[in-house]
Amino acid sequence: MAAHSFKLTLAYDGAEFCGWQRQPGRRTVQGELERAWLAITGESVTFNAAGRTDSGVHAAGQVVSVHSATTIPAERLADALNSQLPEDMVVVAAEQAREGFHATHDAQCKRYRYTIYTGRTRPLFLRRYAWYVPAPLDVPAMRAGGVHLLGEHDFASFQSVGSPRDSTVRTVLEATVASGSAGQGGAPSSAAPIPSHVAATVDSSSLNELAHTVAIDVVGDGFLYHMVRTIAGTLVDVGRGRRKPDWVADVIAARDRGAAGQTAPAHGLMLASVDY
Amino acid sequence: MAAHSFKLTLAYDGAEFCGWQRQPGRRTVQGELERAWLAITGESVTFNAAGRTDSGVHAAGQVVSVHSATTIPAERLADALNSQLPEDMVVVAAEQAREGFHATHDAQCKRYRYTIYTGRTRPLFLRRYAWYVPAPLDVPAMRAGGVHLLGEHDFASFQSVGSPRDSTVRTVLEATVASGSAGQGGAPSSAAPIPSHVAATVDSSSLNELAHTVAIDVVGDGFLYHMVRTIAGTLVDVGRGRRKPDWVADVIAARDRGAAGQTAPAHGLMLASVDY
Repeated sequence: MAAHSFKLTLAYDGAEFCGWQRQPGRRTVQGELERAWLAITGESVTFNAAGRTDSGVHAAGQVVSVHSATTIPAERLADALNSQLPEDMVVVAAEQAREGFHATHDAQCKRYRYTIYTGRTRPLFLRRYAWYVPAPLDVPAMRAGGVHLLGEHDFASFQSVGSPRDSTVRTVLEATVASGSAGQGGAPSSAAPIPSHVAATVDSSSLNELAHTVAIDVVGDGFLYHMVRTIAGTLVDVGRGRRKPDWVADVIAARDRGAAGQTAPAHGLMLASVDY
Repeated sequence: MAAHSFKLTLAYDGAEFCGWQRQPGRRTVQGELERAWLAITGESVTFNAAGRTDSGVHAAGQVVSVHSATTIPAERLADALNSQLPEDMVVVAAEQAREGFHATHDAQCKRYRYTIYTGRTRPLFLRRYAWYVPAPLDVPAMRAGGVHLLGEHDFASFQSVGSPRDSTVRTVLEATVASGSAGQGGAPSSAAPIPSHVAATVDSSSLNELAHTVAIDVVGDGFLYHMVRTIAGTLVDVGRGRRKPDWVADVIAARDRGAAGQTAPAHGLMLASVDY
């Protein structure tokens, strides 16, 4: 039987998963996906993912690849898999890819969004999707700090220990900060669209969580372990006024994890999309 | 000790609650609120709510009242209660009200939102907040159907058995239908704001659940048992083309529950706000 390469786009709610990577005895995205694939095709396969998201991290546009001899037409794969997958993950699209397509190695750039909630009381509908920072954030200062990240740099200061890479040089193509209120009425204050998983409601006497979110969008050709979460923690230090925007340049120059801000919690992070 | 009346605004995620009303051995919003009140004041009280939401129904602006001799200043009540409440409910605001204020009896009108998801694959981030109707909906037709609901009518056709009222006459002040895509970029296609609990993401290659939602907003001076959910089920019959918009007038005229559409599921419904 001829085997082909397939490209799937996945979305998942990371709250109840121990991350992407298959691990014995733990509920993971890869594990559930491979189990569903076995159920519909009878094949035991290994999927590769563009981003091996950590426990608690969400995805709206994760891309995965597999080499398979299945005879199920690509246009029916998504529905077939979705019928076998749990409710907190869904195959959004499936297509046959060029021979040898590899979701990890062939990715040109990935887009992540980190969402922060700054309301006076703790978040409700956003509680699983945003980091609660109970303080006002200076969004223009965060934006100015983010500009220092653009371009090719050694991002060693933004890498957590535990997953060393050969090189810590990466290129950041976009680093924008937008307040959620930008998406509601009036002119957006930046080019970034409204933040994700938003609990917006309909008049002033009810909860409007959208108005109290800040979204950090980072696009890069590759990311180090915890890089986006450390960028978020660092920009929040700037947003709270503990540091000036130019401090971000010092953090990069230090090439030392101790120079950066905290690693922001996993549940605020989402892999938004991957370009090939 | 002098007692006072207090007005609290609550938001909650209805998924894990057996509705508003206290019931022995079940997890309810009223039960959790009264337990938290006891913990911070030492008082056993009974709260009254503007809308006694059913199991699974959400609230962004539920209003409740209580008569209490607490010495905790009103401006500190929200934080004190939130420290005792579970993560799926939050007190958004608390204030001292005029003597004898009663959240149920004094409500002038309530606003509900019913959210429908129409995407090609089942919803992910919206799975607990929207009814999945896997078919395109004719929103202008639904809007035309909704117009028949406006004004004072006998809504007996929209009342489920099990909770009879003295009168089934109510006044609907607003009944609008909007597609979620209206909220993203471009001019909104109606006066209604963007739908609630929205999983919108950032570019075309990732999941954008907002683009596939339809929101029905209903404002009225009072509601019968399951009235908004039956309105939603009825308007979906119109949206799917099974019925013409004018059929809604026939349904009202029939004064017979059998004449209307199905009762839409609880998890798509949210009590948005209450006016006094």
